[in-house]
Amino acid sequence: MTTPQLPMAPMTLDGSAALHQMFRVRWEAWKGCDDACRAQTLKEAAAWFEQAGKAPAGSQSAAFAMLGHKGDLMLVHFRPDFPSLLAAQAEVRKLRLFEYLEQVNSYVSVVELGLYESTRKMYDDLSARGLEQGTEAWAEAIEETLDRQRKAMAVRLYPEIPNMRYLCFYPMDKKRGEQRNWYSEGFAARQKMMQEHGAIGRKYAGIVKQVISGSIGYDDWEWGVDLFAGNPLAFKQLVYEMRFDEASAVYGMFGPFYIAMRLKAEGIAGFMAGEVADAIA
Amino acid sequence: MTTPQLPMAPMTLDGSAALHQMFRVRWEAWKGCDDACRAQTLKEAAAWFEQAGKAPAGSQSAAFAMLGHKGDLMLVHFRPDFPSLLAAQAEVRKLRLFEYLEQVNSYVSVVELGLYESTRKMYDDLSARGLEQGTEAWAEAIEETLDRQRKAMAVRLYPEIPNMRYLCFYPMDKKRGEQRNWYSEGFAARQKMMQEHGAIGRKYAGIVKQVISGSIGYDDWEWGVDLFAGNPLAFKQLVYEMRFDEASAVYGMFGPFYIAMRLKAEGIAGFMAGEVADAIA
Amino acid sequence: MTTPQLPMAPMTLDGSAALHQMFRVRWEAWKGCDDACRAQTLKEAAAWFEQAGKAPAGSQSAAFAMLGHKGDLMLVHFRPDFPSLLAAQAEVRKLRLFEYLEQVNSYVSVVELGLYESTRKMYDDLSARGLEQGTEAWAEAIEETLDRQRKAMAVRLYPEIPNMRYLCFYPMDKKRGEQRNWYSEGFAARQKMMQEHGAIGRKYAGIVKQVISGSIGYDDWEWGVDLFAGNPLAFKQLVYEMRFDEASAVYGMFGPFYIAMRLKAEGIAGFMAGEVADAIA
Amino acid sequence: MTTPQLPMAPMTLDGSAALHQMFRVRWEAWKGCDDACRAQTLKEAAAWFEQAGKAPAGSQSAAFAMLGHKGDLMLVHFRPDFPSLLAAQAEVRKLRLFEYLEQVNSYVSVVELGLYESTRKMYDDLSARGLEQGTEAWAEAIEETLDRQRKAMAVRLYPEIPNMRYLCFYPMDKKRGEQRNWYSEGFAARQKMMQEHGAIGRKYAGIVKQVISGSIGYDDWEWGVDLFAGNPLAFKQLVYEMRFDEASAVYGMFGPFYIAMRLKAEGIAGFMAGEVADAIA
Amino acid sequence: MTTPQLPMAPMTLDGSAALHQMFRVRWEAWKGCDDACRAQTLKEAAAWFEQAGKAPAGSQSAAFAMLGHKGDLMLVHFRPDFPSLLAAQAEVRKLRLFEYLEQVNSYVSVVELGLYESTRKMYDDLSARGLEQGTEAWAEAIEETLDRQRKAMAVRLYPEIPNMRYLCFYPMDKKRGEQRNWYSEGFAARQKMMQEHGAIGRKYAGIVKQVISGSIGYDDWEWGVDLFAGNPLAFKQLVYEMRFDEASAVYGMFGPFYIAMRLKAEGIAGFMAGEVADAIA
Repeated sequence: MTTPQLPMAPMTLDGSAALHQMFRVRWEAWKGCDDACRAQTLKEAAAWFEQAGKAPAGSQSAAFAMLGHKGDLMLVHFRPDFPSLLAAQAEVRKLRLFEYLEQVNSYVSVVELGLYESTRKMYDDLSARGLEQGTEAWAEAIEETLDRQRKAMAVRLYPEIPNMRYLCFYPMDKKRGEQRNWYSEGFAARQKMMQEHGAIGRKYAGIVKQVISGSIGYDDWEWGVDLFAGNPLAFKQLVYEMRFDEASAVYGMFGPFYIAMRLKAEGIAGFMAGEVADAIA
Repeated sequence: MTTPQLPMAPMTLDGSAALHQMFRVRWEAWKGCDDACRAQTLKEAAAWFEQAGKAPAGSQSAAFAMLGHKGDLMLVHFRPDFPSLLAAQAEVRKLRLFEYLEQVNSYVSVVELGLYESTRKMYDDLSARGLEQGTEAWAEAIEETLDRQRKAMAVRLYPEIPNMRYLCFYPMDKKRGEQRNWYSEGFAARQKMMQEHGAIGRKYAGIVKQVISGSIGYDDWEWGVDLFAGNPLAFKQLVYEMRFDEASAVYGMFGPFYIAMRLKAEGIAGFMAGEVADAIA
Repeated sequence: MTTPQLPMAPMTLDGSAALHQMFRVRWEAWKGCDDACRAQTLKEAAAWFEQAGKAPAGSQSAAFAMLGHKGDLMLVHFRPDFPSLLAAQAEVRKLRLFEYLEQVNSYVSVVELGLYESTRKMYDDLSARGLEQGTEAWAEAIEETLDRQRKAMAVRLYPEIPNMRYLCFYPMDKKRGEQRNWYSEGFAARQKMMQEHGAIGRKYAGIVKQVISGSIGYDDWEWGVDLFAGNPLAFKQLVYEMRFDEASAVYGMFGPFYIAMRLKAEGIAGFMAGEVADAIA
Repeated sequence: MTTPQLPMAPMTLDGSAALHQMFRVRWEAWKGCDDACRAQTLKEAAAWFEQAGKAPAGSQSAAFAMLGHKGDLMLVHFRPDFPSLLAAQAEVRKLRLFEYLEQVNSYVSVVELGLYESTRKMYDDLSARGLEQGTEAWAEAIEETLDRQRKAMAVRLYPEIPNMRYLCFYPMDKKRGEQRNWYSEGFAARQKMMQEHGAIGRKYAGIVKQVISGSIGYDDWEWGVDLFAGNPLAFKQLVYEMRFDEASAVYGMFGPFYIAMRLKAEGIAGFMAGEVADAIA
Repeated sequence: MTTPQLPMAPMTLDGSAALHQMFRVRWEAWKGCDDACRAQTLKEAAAWFEQAGKAPAGSQSAAFAMLGHKGDLMLVHFRPDFPSLLAAQAEVRKLRLFEYLEQVNSYVSVVELGLYESTRKMYDDLSARGLEQGTEAWAEAIEETLDRQRKAMAVRLYPEIPNMRYLCFYPMDKKRGEQRNWYSEGFAARQKMMQEHGAIGRKYAGIVKQVISGSIGYDDWEWGVDLFAGNPLAFKQLVYEMRFDEASAVYGMFGPFYIAMRLKAEGIAGFMAGEVADAIA
């Protein structure tokens, strides 16, 4: 048995394609939409949100009311692949409601599970079984293992949008500074940091549900992070606590943060009417 | 008695949810609003500001006239929670006055008291009482102490908007550079720097009133700072003096600064008419 | 035979001028275009895309549907020179469709093959042949070799737009930091890093087709990268894997990433109608 | 006599509140203003500029024609305090001319004299007189000295807008890098650097008149710099020469630069008509 | 003879004031201009460009068609002084064509020859002649030498706009990092780097014509660079090669790059009609 040479990049499992859309409502135009116009517009929108919310895991869309000037309405879409995501984008565009929206931001990514531990374990196991790197047998064994994991992890790779009131979304990078560079660190060092980082997340199990998606090659940051919770203070505590672990303290680069509250499918009417108390889930 | 292991992140007490909104007035559209239109618009707005200003501590809103092009009107809202803040945002949007406003910036945060000293003291006390970290008894004792402090600090956690003429608002971060990184410093070093930092603030007691709010997980900077004073030179002196303490000199990263003057509740009419002398408090 | 002194800059082979254009569709204006207007507009556009797609290699244009808010439609144009590119830009502007587009970004570059290995080899060969640097004979031999390579590489220098569904485009720089500076590294060190970088690309041969174009002197980044593939996960895997090689980990600086799906020439009608499933190639 | 402990921050003398406003002219709207409209608009504006230009030192406003796209018209206002500045801002907004302007930038600050030398001298003198830091007597003596200096420096603290044709305005910060940090340097080192910096300025006495204003707590940079001269080459020479002194070379961080030419009070008509030769002072 | 103390800043010769203007064409508005409107508009514009192109060296204007979204039309103006530049700006604004333009960028500078070598030579010569620094005689001798050089260099200080098809324009700074700081380097080191930098430029004599202008005190970068050539690949080769010399590799900071093609004076009509092939010079 030879000691296997770990790759620099951990393997990943990839699931749903994801699109976050941030919209400002054109309130003034909305004022020009009379009662009949509103009824039609909102009925159509509510129907779309209703079916999109009830779709199978990994194919859902949901709407969120945003705080602050970075947008009024955030839509989160998960779909099996990019053409379906493009179709979802086109469907939203064809809603009457879209006339009263102005898209101000978005994020394109793919739900991802980074396999730091699993990559190492797989390499050790295959090596122990006498397989050699670079051979066809090795490649097949890897692919077979990944397939098994994809099935085992399907619930996380093709997630339902959690039924929790609050959403915190932000994109992030790993720092590539002149002295501290995530991508120059060895596999083992990164694995250890990610493990400590994950341990903090696990302390919030049941309180904060997180969906990580990768956007290398798709958007301007490397990952997108969705946190869902029933109490928004949990976001502040979790992100503050994580900011001190080495993976974040030294290597985390954070983009803009978005905080929003989930709308019921039928809540779009209340939201557009400014009756937000009943509109949020 | 074992020596307790301090956490990396200090505990915090969290209070009112806070929203700062910066608006430009659409002066040209305002010119198209005739006398009757203005009377209605301003009456409604003044009534809203009046009741929002008289609300209980921790639930108030106030309006400020801004200097410069970053906005004409700033609204500061404190509310018990995020749904109430979303409701306040919707209420403002439904005012007739909103037709003449363009939101250009905002800040979302939660009033916060960082407990560097208290965290250490609590850990020492509990340890002295023979409690052990990680036990349920320890967790309960912590929660009990925090509850007691929340009550004792209620006035600062759910603040009234101080009745002072000048407001200075800015967001800030702690630096995470390659060599100087706040989040890589030990708890004791950070505690000491925050203590020195706080000592400067205390020299201005009675002259400058400050409200710190945390925005990790909510907005693009880590904290928001509101300073209130009767003399705006106090802002310049305080912030300049603080810039030399280690916590700020080495680790402070500052966002845009906003300077504004409080409007009386009924001052919105004078403000919109450009009669600012009588409109400010 | 003297040992030749390598230049700091590798020689390059330069091919087609390239223009990437990112457009937002003005959906609201498009709604004002009635059936006859749409028929005319789309017929003209489809005809333009048809002929531009069928043009000889190095002179083609193609359209791509974009995900996210950074644009709805990306046009990629290759042309023999800058005046032809300016003409292509003018042709697009004269299409009726252009009335419904708003250009939000672009990239100007020239297809480039960087000759790190070839430069060294050429210098060694010429030197071995007894030629001396700085002489006319040397210069002629260089030019002759480059000419031969230009012919041999014509297919890559004047590329067809690959017939693959997915496009990933991004611009990039080489870092010029205070300690890590690509342009202060010696030729041999850079050659070695580019070779390792290229080896990763070659692992994806047949899966990802890449076109590199240089934009030093033409646009705000130093290079543009087009990746084409039949499966968009290949972009994520390739770019992630490359991020760990020294050339990228330490020296790569990446601009915005664009992800898009190729439209059939006749697909513009479906795209504008929001029927994207049939519109993409 | 004890050796006094110098404060980190030098004392400052603070004078007029200052507002710089940069406007683009809405030339197309201006074309819609017919002869009568123009006559009225320009008469009113000229009258306002006339009286604002003749106001006492420290309360003046002046208009400048700008080169380039960062604005067409710059207004510089000095006033005794922030409410007066807010009133000036409102007065400009109420001019008919304002309908044809779009404010694109601004700067809020307070005229400031930094007292590096004076702080040290005062501390030495008071100490020599046997006063002790921290005592009431010390504080009174400081305040008395500052008062005396405020009177002596009134002409510089409440300046007239110099009657020179060219204006160069830019904001600046002192660097707070990881290795080179102005705010971590000792008082003596900073005093020495500021003295050398000032010596260069004094070489241009009579040629370039400068007004420094502090904006810590008020705007996004720490200081604003106004340079006035009869020959714009003097700006280039002065700023270039200063860029090599340590205070600037190592610690100066510069914002956008604005170059403009003073309009005569009655010059606004010529300026709006595009007859700039006669309009500038 | 004493050894003269070189100044930190090299002396400069200053010539024409320069303004670069980048415009987007408002194509939709242009469609609303009927045949008669176009004839008038274009006749007037062509006449202006014709006379501005034929003006004496140092007082010319020229128009360039741009590639990409950063603008459609670039105007380059050289004038003897800033008031003439302001007048040129006003003249353009008064053209009918201006109604169809939107200014999106600009650059203000003064043509400059940096005298690193000459400064040193002058100091040595004067010193050799027994003159002493700081004396009136020294100052007079310097001024006399500069005057002589200004006359000798008049052709470069007050340049004609070269009659070459391609223009590359970009602004730049010299880096002031924490470890590598151009302004902290000694005169001799900078002189040596500038000499090597200049040597590369001289290799392209006859192929690329460059005009350097200084903008310290006038605009947001320190210098503007105009390169003119008959073949745009020369820009890419020159700038790439220069990027490896120490002055650029370590100290060059580059702003946005603009690439454009010269329009014939009468070419504006073809340009606006989208017939670019005949419109470019």
